[in-house]
Amino acid sequence: MSQPAPLAAAPAFDEAWFAARAQPGVQRLKAYDPGHDLVALRRQYGEAHLVELGSNENPYGPSPAARAAILDSLHALHRYPDPLGGDLKRALARTHGVEVGQILLGNGSHELLMQLGQVFAGPGEEVVFSRYGFAVFALSTQAAGARMRIVEALPREAAMPCGHDLDAIAAAVGADTKLVYVANPNNPTGTWFGRDALVAFLDKIPAHVIVVMDEAYAEMADAPDYASALSVLDRYPNVAVTRTFSKAYGLAGLRVGYLIAQPGLIAVMDRLRESFNVNGPALAACEAALGDEDHLRWACARNAEQRSALAEALARRGLRVFPSQTNFVLVEFGARTPQVEAALVARGVILRPMGGYGLADCIRISVGSADENRRLLAALDEVLA
Amino acid sequence: MSQPAPLAAAPAFDEAWFAARAQPGVQRLKAYDPGHDLVALRRQYGEAHLVELGSNENPYGPSPAARAAILDSLHALHRYPDPLGGDLKRALARTHGVEVGQILLGNGSHELLMQLGQVFAGPGEEVVFSRYGFAVFALSTQAAGARMRIVEALPREAAMPCGHDLDAIAAAVGADTKLVYVANPNNPTGTWFGRDALVAFLDKIPAHVIVVMDEAYAEMADAPDYASALSVLDRYPNVAVTRTFSKAYGLAGLRVGYLIAQPGLIAVMDRLRESFNVNGPALAACEAALGDEDHLRWACARNAEQRSALAEALARRGLRVFPSQTNFVLVEFGARTPQVEAALVARGVILRPMGGYGLADCIRISVGSADENRRLLAALDEVLA
Repeated sequence: MSQPAPLAAAPAFDEAWFAARAQPGVQRLKAYDPGHDLVALRRQYGEAHLVELGSNENPYGPSPAARAAILDSLHALHRYPDPLGGDLKRALARTHGVEVGQILLGNGSHELLMQLGQVFAGPGEEVVFSRYGFAVFALSTQAAGARMRIVEALPREAAMPCGHDLDAIAAAVGADTKLVYVANPNNPTGTWFGRDALVAFLDKIPAHVIVVMDEAYAEMADAPDYASALSVLDRYPNVAVTRTFSKAYGLAGLRVGYLIAQPGLIAVMDRLRESFNVNGPALAACEAALGDEDHLRWACARNAEQRSALAEALARRGLRVFPSQTNFVLVEFGARTPQVEAALVARGVILRPMGGYGLADCIRISVGSADENRRLLAALDEVLA
Repeated sequence: MSQPAPLAAAPAFDEAWFAARAQPGVQRLKAYDPGHDLVALRRQYGEAHLVELGSNENPYGPSPAARAAILDSLHALHRYPDPLGGDLKRALARTHGVEVGQILLGNGSHELLMQLGQVFAGPGEEVVFSRYGFAVFALSTQAAGARMRIVEALPREAAMPCGHDLDAIAAAVGADTKLVYVANPNNPTGTWFGRDALVAFLDKIPAHVIVVMDEAYAEMADAPDYASALSVLDRYPNVAVTRTFSKAYGLAGLRVGYLIAQPGLIAVMDRLRESFNVNGPALAACEAALGDEDHLRWACARNAEQRSALAEALARRGLRVFPSQTNFVLVEFGARTPQVEAALVARGVILRPMGGYGLADCIRISVGSADENRRLLAALDEVLA
């Protein structure tokens, strides 16, 4: 056997060495920040002693039918999942009144947002989105090697503080723009816009520019003027809507999102999709969860009720709470934010600091169950005292 | 509300329209062919009446500990999975004697192979791999917009028919080559190469070219000369090894693969990784499966025993069976291949036709349990009679 050259004479094969060999977009890319290391915190504090309100999870959990469906799927763990995801797509088509060919399943909407960038944007091209938009919009653009055009958000003083400035977004669309990412409601601000604003916005976007409407929190929006872009999909063929089972359906652990758009857009995206991208238990559980509309309505109603109660309780403590149509509220804590956040972690209350979003004086607080919110407020009172 | 222009005056927003707006690599891309629609066939024939030997699944299923771990995870379906995959990575690091920082988890090795292309290859650059290599090598290259350099395989008459010609692969590496994909053992041929050939090959590849060794079937290889590239990872820092829980571990339904390489390469890949790319039940089940070495050894031993028996039985019927170190055998049926395959499907025996791989006179047959193989052979005897 021949001997390779000794490594001592070789360069250091470190991250910089490999990054230099990566594509330009990846060279500039920084990985998504998922927040605190919850596994470590659970081991440190004990799971029962934590109040986990950092990840916008659904405290009521999924429909019991989802768990039952997983149990039923366990005999087939050695089999590849259905590469077509046919049963789940048929159920989604019925739920949303669209064709099966208008649906693409993703390993979370995170995967779909990344692949939308990969398919439709590239070097020399531009992707437009708002400041304080979902972090994955930037990751998707950078990974694709495209330019980010970040549009200033509405001011803090606006009725929708830090929300999308739709006129400014439309005005930023230029000759190189391939893709526009919009979230409604938006994470991490919680803000939203109504049907008239949606239609006025879409009217301004040229048909060759694809508008991705991320509606991860849509099921929880109950403002009278809120409208999903699904309601205008027929009139704007350049619109693609992402949804998820991670929020209202309480299945964040399974990683299932979906995209609804024109069949032609779905067919192009499907070329890039990994054929078994949604796993077997996840397909089964989501189909079952989708069938339990009562559970969905119940969880969303409890969320709306707790969202109001939590926002009021925080406001009573003199804190500014951003309006929200989601299962979280963004809250201004001012200059003391890092200290407050750290003191809450020390008490086992895990929220999401917003420095990464350029909102260092704010904390995003997921709406928990009544009990979780009570524990959060008690800890906060200690910290603010 | 303003009215959008009527769609009648607009172009047809079909696949061609959207494809024209996609990146060049995606314009040429054709989706992976997962074989027969098994969900439809199961409904047509009844699951118990099918002999499913088309997808190289493990007929013995996973360790019972994997199912138990999923049950234990069901209380946390509403929680995001551990974005670090820490417990599974620590278990893998112990199993393979590497550092945790040398491991990246993927939603199947399919995801890892796609992202290796996305990170390290791009327009104007080249990716080298063998004819009759795993289909995902081509998809990864095309999706990245890079050029494919497909190297002729060893001839049909060789001891390793249609296997990798490592000298030719090394000779094909040129100034534009960023990545080389090699599978050992290879799917769909079943062929492999030994340690001396591996080292001689790696000695010829410049250190700035990344060699991806796909070892999806490594646990099932028992030829005395077979060696995983993991055994030489310290000496070739440009080598990255992909493994999977889909084959020997019997967990194809969960979509978990992993990459082992230098920490620097993993850190660059981690920038592109979607933070929750492996779902909660899957993380738990794979960690448990990894801990049950007895089950792994037992399943691999039964596979080896059945692989020999099936190969002999097929050879006794006058068929040429390619040598295999995997859980499938590639078998020549000659000009009658499509008829044989269709007649077997009609009898509920599902194999994998190889036209898509340019081996239209061959069928890939997964090694089943003793009972499955007996039913396959009985159906084959009817068809060949």
